[in-house]
Amino acid sequence: MIIVLNRNDQNTIDELQEHFGNNHDIFVHHNRVAVQGITRDDLSDSEKSAAVEIIEDVPAAVQGSRVFHPEDTIIRTKHSMIGGDNFTMMAGPCSVESEEHITRMAAVAKANGATVLRGGAFKPRTSPYSFQGLGEEGLRFLRRAADQYNMDVVTEVMDDEHVEMVGKYTDIFQIGARNMQNFSLLKAVGRTNIPVMLKRGMSATVDDVLNASEYIAAGGNHNIMIAERGIRTFDNKYTRNTMDAGVVPVLQKLTHYPVIIDPSHAAGHTEFVTPLGLAGVAAGASGLVVEIHDDPAHALSDGPQALLPEQFKELSDKAFAIRDLLTEMPAEQAEAGR
Amino acid sequence: MIIVLNRNDQNTIDELQEHFGNNHDIFVHHNRVAVQGITRDDLSDSEKSAAVEIIEDVPAAVQGSRVFHPEDTIIRTKHSMIGGDNFTMMAGPCSVESEEHITRMAAVAKANGATVLRGGAFKPRTSPYSFQGLGEEGLRFLRRAADQYNMDVVTEVMDDEHVEMVGKYTDIFQIGARNMQNFSLLKAVGRTNIPVMLKRGMSATVDDVLNASEYIAAGGNHNIMIAERGIRTFDNKYTRNTMDAGVVPVLQKLTHYPVIIDPSHAAGHTEFVTPLGLAGVAAGASGLVVEIHDDPAHALSDGPQALLPEQFKELSDKAFAIRDLLTEMPAEQAEAGR
Amino acid sequence: MIIVLNRNDQNTIDELQEHFGNNHDIFVHHNRVAVQGITRDDLSDSEKSAAVEIIEDVPAAVQGSRVFHPEDTIIRTKHSMIGGDNFTMMAGPCSVESEEHITRMAAVAKANGATVLRGGAFKPRTSPYSFQGLGEEGLRFLRRAADQYNMDVVTEVMDDEHVEMVGKYTDIFQIGARNMQNFSLLKAVGRTNIPVMLKRGMSATVDDVLNASEYIAAGGNHNIMIAERGIRTFDNKYTRNTMDAGVVPVLQKLTHYPVIIDPSHAAGHTEFVTPLGLAGVAAGASGLVVEIHDDPAHALSDGPQALLPEQFKELSDKAFAIRDLLTEMPAEQAEAGR
Amino acid sequence: MIIVLNRNDQNTIDELQEHFGNNHDIFVHHNRVAVQGITRDDLSDSEKSAAVEIIEDVPAAVQGSRVFHPEDTIIRTKHSMIGGDNFTMMAGPCSVESEEHITRMAAVAKANGATVLRGGAFKPRTSPYSFQGLGEEGLRFLRRAADQYNMDVVTEVMDDEHVEMVGKYTDIFQIGARNMQNFSLLKAVGRTNIPVMLKRGMSATVDDVLNASEYIAAGGNHNIMIAERGIRTFDNKYTRNTMDAGVVPVLQKLTHYPVIIDPSHAAGHTEFVTPLGLAGVAAGASGLVVEIHDDPAHALSDGPQALLPEQFKELSDKAFAIRDLLTEMPAEQAEAGR
Repeated sequence: MIIVLNRNDQNTIDELQEHFGNNHDIFVHHNRVAVQGITRDDLSDSEKSAAVEIIEDVPAAVQGSRVFHPEDTIIRTKHSMIGGDNFTMMAGPCSVESEEHITRMAAVAKANGATVLRGGAFKPRTSPYSFQGLGEEGLRFLRRAADQYNMDVVTEVMDDEHVEMVGKYTDIFQIGARNMQNFSLLKAVGRTNIPVMLKRGMSATVDDVLNASEYIAAGGNHNIMIAERGIRTFDNKYTRNTMDAGVVPVLQKLTHYPVIIDPSHAAGHTEFVTPLGLAGVAAGASGLVVEIHDDPAHALSDGPQALLPEQFKELSDKAFAIRDLLTEMPAEQAEAGR
Repeated sequence: MIIVLNRNDQNTIDELQEHFGNNHDIFVHHNRVAVQGITRDDLSDSEKSAAVEIIEDVPAAVQGSRVFHPEDTIIRTKHSMIGGDNFTMMAGPCSVESEEHITRMAAVAKANGATVLRGGAFKPRTSPYSFQGLGEEGLRFLRRAADQYNMDVVTEVMDDEHVEMVGKYTDIFQIGARNMQNFSLLKAVGRTNIPVMLKRGMSATVDDVLNASEYIAAGGNHNIMIAERGIRTFDNKYTRNTMDAGVVPVLQKLTHYPVIIDPSHAAGHTEFVTPLGLAGVAAGASGLVVEIHDDPAHALSDGPQALLPEQFKELSDKAFAIRDLLTEMPAEQAEAGR
Repeated sequence: MIIVLNRNDQNTIDELQEHFGNNHDIFVHHNRVAVQGITRDDLSDSEKSAAVEIIEDVPAAVQGSRVFHPEDTIIRTKHSMIGGDNFTMMAGPCSVESEEHITRMAAVAKANGATVLRGGAFKPRTSPYSFQGLGEEGLRFLRRAADQYNMDVVTEVMDDEHVEMVGKYTDIFQIGARNMQNFSLLKAVGRTNIPVMLKRGMSATVDDVLNASEYIAAGGNHNIMIAERGIRTFDNKYTRNTMDAGVVPVLQKLTHYPVIIDPSHAAGHTEFVTPLGLAGVAAGASGLVVEIHDDPAHALSDGPQALLPEQFKELSDKAFAIRDLLTEMPAEQAEAGR
Repeated sequence: MIIVLNRNDQNTIDELQEHFGNNHDIFVHHNRVAVQGITRDDLSDSEKSAAVEIIEDVPAAVQGSRVFHPEDTIIRTKHSMIGGDNFTMMAGPCSVESEEHITRMAAVAKANGATVLRGGAFKPRTSPYSFQGLGEEGLRFLRRAADQYNMDVVTEVMDDEHVEMVGKYTDIFQIGARNMQNFSLLKAVGRTNIPVMLKRGMSATVDDVLNASEYIAAGGNHNIMIAERGIRTFDNKYTRNTMDAGVVPVLQKLTHYPVIIDPSHAAGHTEFVTPLGLAGVAAGASGLVVEIHDDPAHALSDGPQALLPEQFKELSDKAFAIRDLLTEMPAEQAEAGR
C-alpha cells in the first residue's frame, strides 16, 4: 500500500515508520510511503486523515514503480547521465581480448559518441569448454582503456563472490540475461552503490524483470537500468532472438528506471544490428549497448554480431539524429507512453 | 534451381521452356529462369554453357526471393507507390461503421499524409457472436469515402467466394493473419491482378509467410506486400502481441516485396501504437497501416488500440521525418540489410 | 447469461424464447437457457423467480462450455462412439496415395483396434509446389477402403466450397490447424450434421480453440471433437511441435466435447510418436489419431513421422492397456479434471 | 572427437592421454576417449589404427551424450536407484514449514511409494518480499524427517556459497529452473560427489539443458538427472507452464542421464497435476517429483498446486501401475526412443 502525503509532512512519515517499521518493509520517496503487507484498516485515524491519497493496488515491485516514484530516475556516472532526456551510447567488444584490442575499441567507441565502454572479462558461455574470459586481468585492461578515453566501464558480474572484486574496476555492473533471476547475485549488487544494468532474461515477462530489479532496490541500490536484448520466440532462423521494441514504452510507463536496448544480442547477425538499434531508439530507449569489433572473424566470442567501426559510426550517427528529432518534436507520444 | 543467363538470351529461355515447361514449374524474370525440381544434371550441354551462373540452393518460395528477383518490387496503385524508396501511410478505422464515419476518417487520414484508406467490412472475429461487419454495404461506403479524398482502398477479404465481389471495391486486398495459410483464399487472390497485403500469422515463421506469399505469386499475381502485425509470445500482459521489428530487415534481405508494419494490432493499446510505429519506420519498413478513430470508446471493434486524429498526426509527422532522415543519410545500412 | 430452470419447466423456456428470441442469440440445453448479451435486470419477475440459478459469468463459447452443457458429448458414427468413457483409435496414412495403398493401410489400422480411417485427399502444404493431394478421386479410394473394413472415415476439408462434396464421402470432417480460424469454413461445416474434428492451431490458446468450435456450434452442429497436435514453442530442433498434454484435462474441465491427441504431428519423427501418444492417453484423451505407413521413405507426405504397422501395433496395444487401467482404477482424477 | 577403441586397450588410452592431455580436455569412458578441439588429422598413425571408429560429429555436451556413454546412468543413493529400469517417486511440500509438518509429509510420501523427500529451505521467490524459506534450520528438519522414514532428501541449493552447507543435509542437490544457467553454481555442485537434479529452465532448449549439465560433469560429478517442469509458451491462462512430454524420449535418446518429470510446477493447479504426472510416466520418465500438502490453503508457498495426501495416493498408484504395464510389455518403444 502507498500512502501519499502532503509535501514535507515529516511528522506523519515518522509516525508511519514508528507504527510499521519493525514488522513491515517500509519505503519512503518524498511524500510517498510504501508499506508492504498492510491494508487501509491497519492505519490509525491520524494516518488516514493525513493521507492525500491511499493507493492499495500497487505492483509487487513497488520501489521500481511509477506509482511510488513518478519521476524518471537519472543515473549519474563520471562521464554519463543515463535516463530522462539523455541518450547514452555504450559500445565495445563482446570479450576483452587484450589490452591493445580493448584500447583500440575504446578509441572507436569514443570517437562515435559512446561514453560507456563495454567488454566482458567473465563470460557466461553455454558450453563449459568455450572461452570463459580473461578474468581480473581483463578488468584491468578494460579500466585502463576506459580511463585513457574518459569513459565509464560496464561489465558483467556473474557471481556474488565476485561483486567486490569487479566493483573495483567498473562503473556499472551488468547482470546478464541468464542470471536475471540469480537472486543471490541481485542481492549482492543491491548492497553496493554501483549502478546496475539488468538484462531481461530470454523468457522473462515484464513483471519478472521488474520483480528482479526489486531485489536490487530492496538492498538499497536504486541506480538501476533495464536492458532489452531480445526474447525467445518460435522463430530464430534469421535473428538470434526477437527484439521486443514494445517493452520500451511499456517499461517507461510502469517504472522510472532508464530502458536500454541491446540490438547486438537480439540480432545475432551484423547486418540486422543497425535496423534493430534504430528501432529501439525510435521506440524511445534511453540508450544503446552495442558490440563492436575491428576483426569479427577472429573475435573470441560473438563475432558474427559485432559491428565494424564504420558500421558503428553509421548506427551511432543515425541513432543520435533520430533521438534529436524525437526530442525536438512535440513530445505528446513520450508522455502518452508514461 | 535458377539458371542465370546473359541479358537478352531469349534463345536459351525458349530452349529451357521447351525442355522443361511441360513437366516442371518454370518462371522467368529478365535473365533468370527458375525451374522447380531439377538438378544441374538435367540440363543439356548447350543450356549449361549458356548459363552465367547456376544456383542450386534456392528457397521454396522462389518467385518471392531476391535470388530470383534482385530488384525491389514497387507496387503502383492509382494514388500510391509502395516499396523501393517510397514510404506509404495507410490509415482508417478497424471497421467501416457508417458512411459518415468512414468519410470523416478518410479526411483525417488524408490530411495527415495517408494515401490508402483502410477499413473492414468483413471482420474475422474470435467469437461468432461479435459484430461481423457491414458486408458489401460497408465496401460501398469505403469506396466512396476513398474516392472523395483521392485515396486507395485496402480491405480484408476473408473468403475465396468473396474475392470477385470485394475486388470490385478495393485497390488492395488484405489477407488477415488468421487466414495467412488459407491456401484456397491465397490461390483466389493470386488469380487476380489486384495488389495484396499479406499479414504474417501470429505464429508464422519468416519462411511460412514467404511460402504463403508464393501461393499468390504462383497464380501470377506478383503485387504483394507483407505486413508484420505482431507475433504471439509468452508475454501479452501489456501489449497484445510482440512486434518483431527484426522481421523488416530480414524480409528485405530475403524478398523483393515491400514490408509494411501494423503497429495497432501489435500494441493493442493506444499508448503504445506510436512508439511501435516509429520503431517499424526506423527498422526500414516501406509503410505503416494504422487504426484511427475519433471516438474509440464507442468503436464497433478494436477501439482500445485506435489512435485519435491528433495522435495519428503526431505519429505520421514523426514517421515521415524519420523516414526522410534515414533516406537522406548515407544508406549503408539499407544496403547491408539486403 | 445462463438461466438454470427446474427440469421440465417448458413454460419458462417458452417465455424466454418469446421475450428474447427475436433480438438475442438464445440456446436451450435441457433445463439451461443461454441468452447472449443480456443481464439479470433484463429478466422479468416471473423469469427471475423461475430460475434455480442465474449464471452471469459465462465464457464467450457458451454452447461448448460445461456451464451450459455439463454432460460429456458422445459422438456416434456408424462404427464408433467418441467421448465419455469410450476410447477411439483413428489411423491411416497422411495422404491417400492410391486405392491399393489406402486399402492396405485400412487393414493394418483395423487389425490394431482402429475404427476410424484417416487419409488426406486435399493437403494443406506449406509450399504451392508440393503434392496437393489426389482430390475427389482420393476420397473415393478412402471411402471404399473404409467400407471394406467397416470403418468410419475422417478427412480434411480445406475450403467451404468443398464441404458438400467432401461430405458425400466422409463420416467426420477434419479442420486442419492452419484453418482453425477460417471462419467461413467453420460456418460451412456448422451447417451440416457431420461430426467435426477441429485441430487446435499452432499458436491457438485454449480460449481460441473453444471460440473457433463455437462457430461450428452456432450453425447447429454440436458433434465436435477437439484435437491437440502440438503447438509452436521456442524449441523445435528434435520434435516438430511441443505436444501440450495439459490441454487434455484443461479442455475436459471447460468443455463437453471429446479431446483427441494427434501425436504424429506433435512428434514429427517416428521414434517419438509412441511416447507422445501414450502420454496423451495417460492425460485422459478420448482417442488418438495416428499416421501410419508401410514404406515411410516413399510416402508422398510426412513420411518421417509415420509409424510402421508393427510400431502402430505396439502403440495401440499400450494405449488401450493404459486406458483400461485408468478406467478401472478409482476415477477421482478423471473427476478432478472436470 | 570421440575415438572408440577395442575393450581394454589401455595402451592407446595412455598414448592419447600423453599426446593430448596437457592441451585439451580429454575424457575416458570404458573404451571411448573424447578429446575436445582436435580433428582426425591430429591423431598419430598408431592412434588411428587402434581406433575401431572415429566420431567427429559430437555434441558440445560430450560427457552427457549417448555417443560417449551409451549405457543408462543409474544413480544410487542410500534408499533409491534412479534411472535405467527403476522408477522413483519423490514427494514433499514446496517449502519446509516446520519440523512437525515436514515429518507428517514424509509419512504421507513414504506410505505412497516415495523414497525421496523433497522440501525447500531456500526459496527462489519472484518477489524479494515473499517468504524466502527457513534456511539451515529447515534443512535440519528435512533431514530428520527423511531419516525417520528411511528416505533420501532432495532440496534446492541457490548459491555456490551454500553448496558445502546444504551438502551436509541433502542426498540430492536440486538446481532450480531459474538457476539452470548460473554457471558458478553448476561448477560448485560439479566439484562435489552428491547427485544433482537439474531442472530445465523455463525457456531452455534441449541443447541448453544438456550444455548446462555438462558444467556439472566437467567438474567430475556425473550423478546427474534432468527434470522437466514445464516451459513458457503463449498460453498460461489455465496451466502455469506447458509440460513438454516430448522432452522425455528426446533426452533419453541424446543423453544417458535419468529424466524426471515435475508435474506440479507444470500444472500450477492441483486438478491438472495428476493427468500431467501420468503423461510423464507414460512418456517414459524415470521418476516424478511432486508437491504435496495436507492444508494447501495455508501453505507458505505454491499451495494451489499441491496434492492432498489422498490425491497423491491416487497419482502414485496409477503412476506405478502404468510404469509396470509399460515395463512388462515388449519394450520396442523404449528402445526406439534411444
